[in-house]
Amino acid sequence: MAGQRGRPKQYDAETALQLAGNVFWSQGYSGTSLDDLAAAMGMNRPSIYRAFGGKEALYRQAMGQFAQQMEEGFNRTIEQEADMRKGLSQFYRAALNVYGAGDTALGCMVICTAPAAAWVHPDVQADLLQVIEQLDAKLLARVEQGIRKGQISSVIDAQSLSKLIQAVLHSLAVRVRAGESKASLERFSDASVAMLLGPAPNK
Amino acid sequence: MAGQRGRPKQYDAETALQLAGNVFWSQGYSGTSLDDLAAAMGMNRPSIYRAFGGKEALYRQAMGQFAQQMEEGFNRTIEQEADMRKGLSQFYRAALNVYGAGDTALGCMVICTAPAAAWVHPDVQADLLQVIEQLDAKLLARVEQGIRKGQISSVIDAQSLSKLIQAVLHSLAVRVRAGESKASLERFSDASVAMLLGPAPNK
Repeated sequence: MAGQRGRPKQYDAETALQLAGNVFWSQGYSGTSLDDLAAAMGMNRPSIYRAFGGKEALYRQAMGQFAQQMEEGFNRTIEQEADMRKGLSQFYRAALNVYGAGDTALGCMVICTAPAAAWVHPDVQADLLQVIEQLDAKLLARVEQGIRKGQISSVIDAQSLSKLIQAVLHSLAVRVRAGESKASLERFSDASVAMLLGPAPNK
Repeated sequence: MAGQRGRPKQYDAETALQLAGNVFWSQGYSGTSLDDLAAAMGMNRPSIYRAFGGKEALYRQAMGQFAQQMEEGFNRTIEQEADMRKGLSQFYRAALNVYGAGDTALGCMVICTAPAAAWVHPDVQADLLQVIEQLDAKLLARVEQGIRKGQISSVIDAQSLSKLIQAVLHSLAVRVRAGESKASLERFSDASVAMLLGPAPNK
């Protein structure tokens, strides 16, 4: 903060990670230097190394923190909402809120920055796959529950439906980053819920 | 080529662009230096500047070249195939072939590298949006044609269905880059066609 001298001894690692994550989120992995990170975190380079390891380790931890935030969004919406359609719609809306709008619209930190780094950095690639597969598993569990409870009429392939639900999220992430308007994307995400899950079957 | 001395006077600009594009495709925009490009293109830096402009101009031209290649794939499949389901399935398969498999699986050059660069480089962001919107328009025209010809049973929102078709492509791009197997993604893309377009209506 402006005017603040020094740092509390117990520097809040989670906050520092978030500040680093914000730089990676806007500038990408390769577009971010350790000096950028040091400036954003208010830490010098040796302190960063001591606390988090090098740039790649820091990026992977920031990715993990972001994925955790998205998972909490999943739990608050899809998991807690009994109405599957409402829950999925809320999930997409919550994601769009995180992805941002207007000048500060950055999309998803993982989907918009990890792919560019994944070929050169195999550990980033592995993390990216893990984030995707973990969401696949959570969505598949919810789709299977929806089938058991008769919330979905007919499903060709539960696994592919789960992936299709995530595909909308990937596309929202990229489209936000490309500058598409929030209103347009809310319309798309709402229509996607209706197309993917169909009308609620009559009991 | 090994052992080849000098360069033909009429250096093939399209080939040089493709060689540059391959470096951007694997390393991303910020992860690519002008020295990397010069080495891959077999041109010195002043020649690159003269022929293509700076790094950003070169990247944007390489993106354009890649998008052109994807558009040709669209024309060969969706546009030329009267059976909408078959055409869409072929389109996804053709994209997966371009995205690659195994160790050389790079996903989509545009979707996997432009988002990371889009926030810092507004022209790249604008190009990314344009590529997405151009495919939206082509897909929408095909969906509307499918509705007119009675090839699709019921459509909630033709524009959103077109975006959903492209969402699968975005997700395939990212999943390939993350290292998901081609077999898994072929299963997903085939199931997506069935889920998105539904069974062919009886005439």
